[in-house]
Amino acid sequence: MLGGAAVHFSLAASFFTEVRPVGPVGDDFGAAEFEVLENRGVVTDDIERVEGGSSFFWRGRYEYDLNVAHTEDTQLGVFAEFEPKLSEAARAADMLFLANIQPDLQRKVRALCPAAHFSALDSMNLWIDTAKDSLLAAISEVECVIVNDAEVRQLTGESNLARAARAVMGHGPRAVVAKQGEYGAALFTEEGFFALPGFPLEDVRDPTGAGDSFAGGFLGYLDSHDGDLDEASLRRAMGYGTVLASFNVEDFGTERVARLTREEIDERFATLHAMTQFEPLPVR
Amino acid sequence: MLGGAAVHFSLAASFFTEVRPVGPVGDDFGAAEFEVLENRGVVTDDIERVEGGSSFFWRGRYEYDLNVAHTEDTQLGVFAEFEPKLSEAARAADMLFLANIQPDLQRKVRALCPAAHFSALDSMNLWIDTAKDSLLAAISEVECVIVNDAEVRQLTGESNLARAARAVMGHGPRAVVAKQGEYGAALFTEEGFFALPGFPLEDVRDPTGAGDSFAGGFLGYLDSHDGDLDEASLRRAMGYGTVLASFNVEDFGTERVARLTREEIDERFATLHAMTQFEPLPVR
Repeated sequence: MLGGAAVHFSLAASFFTEVRPVGPVGDDFGAAEFEVLENRGVVTDDIERVEGGSSFFWRGRYEYDLNVAHTEDTQLGVFAEFEPKLSEAARAADMLFLANIQPDLQRKVRALCPAAHFSALDSMNLWIDTAKDSLLAAISEVECVIVNDAEVRQLTGESNLARAARAVMGHGPRAVVAKQGEYGAALFTEEGFFALPGFPLEDVRDPTGAGDSFAGGFLGYLDSHDGDLDEASLRRAMGYGTVLASFNVEDFGTERVARLTREEIDERFATLHAMTQFEPLPVR
Repeated sequence: MLGGAAVHFSLAASFFTEVRPVGPVGDDFGAAEFEVLENRGVVTDDIERVEGGSSFFWRGRYEYDLNVAHTEDTQLGVFAEFEPKLSEAARAADMLFLANIQPDLQRKVRALCPAAHFSALDSMNLWIDTAKDSLLAAISEVECVIVNDAEVRQLTGESNLARAARAVMGHGPRAVVAKQGEYGAALFTEEGFFALPGFPLEDVRDPTGAGDSFAGGFLGYLDSHDGDLDEASLRRAMGYGTVLASFNVEDFGTERVARLTREEIDERFATLHAMTQFEPLPVR
């Protein structure tokens, strides 16, 4: 079914700002798929449709607790020969998310968007294993890294997450978000540390795309506050990322986020806030 | 070196209240070991020293990220034939922690302490596998269950943690604390859900005893507020549990907590509070 980092990210971010995904699709990406994006106001001009090609495809299965995914099949399809060609409007973006892909491709897109004052990238163990130098170069060109906590460790060879995050910041980024699946996400900045638990749900159907939905809520919220990237804003953005990820996993593919409303987001954000706050009264 | 659930729990709780551990030790538990407890004001009258016996012994190793422990050796020693005989003072306790042990033994101690208005138990996969009925009976006799999140799932056969916690509460307890290692801990009550991340440390030396130190901080704080067991108090108790666990892992065995001060605890509690709060300003 419909999925992919750009799709999940775009739908989540669409509740906060104009989103313009860049990437190739094949013949199998038709009117119904475009409609899911366009119904949420996502601008699809930079989606390149390759005649005769097939869209990127992933199939996997999850362990009992849904925390661990196992890939069963990956087909690059039209991504194998993709060369990003951004429209003028896309090149003018002031905020940029480089979804998980070969890091040299991420660097090309980053270079095409000189106006972006805040850019973030995701990555995965494959690129740490096969293209680490490129990935480190890409990291040095972004303001924020949003990856799984195990990848923060693997990237730096540092088993302690706090040290590993600091080592990543040493390459340039001012913020590192370590995604932790159902356990939530942690934010490391120069100012300090912040963490939120995953929103507790009694019905989780499909964790696929949760991380990209998180990134969409996180960056989408930040873009709706352009220029306002202080610690308080980053913490609120963590909250919106958590909320969008939680809706994404409530149904398969894009189904839940496609029918989501801004009112539902704000309500859950308030609930998340209430679930994570405590009063530090002095001990008697 | 010195360890064990009762030792870690007692030292952590000693910063908040009078603690009276009950359990057997062997000849190897000598003046030096008693001194560690007594230096923190722990009342050792109910520690039963068995002549010619050996104290319970555990040896294990941890995975790279310190989240997964592998047992290499367990020797029950004097625990094999232990029959709890509580002093009058111990039987009068108004708060009780039943550390991880065979659940029938936990039930015996619970029955000996009828004045306890708040009791909590810990357990492990071994008892879920070998003594599930006894464990469920023990759970029905306590107000709070403090176990690892994987054990909440295993106990109930429910992969979703929120559902699993609700199922545990269905057996009687009003609160379930799911410990999540470095990810922190989650609190489930009738009123709702609360979670705190683990305190981020750059130097973790030994996670052994972190869960018992958590329980000691949690229950110790609650006991210092006797009768005051509302949601706000439970949340603060989660904070103190988190703080005590974090100190425990900073050094091997009991070394860090043995030299800890109340001032350090309060300072870290305030830091933890600052690390987990955010302002939910409306989106512009």
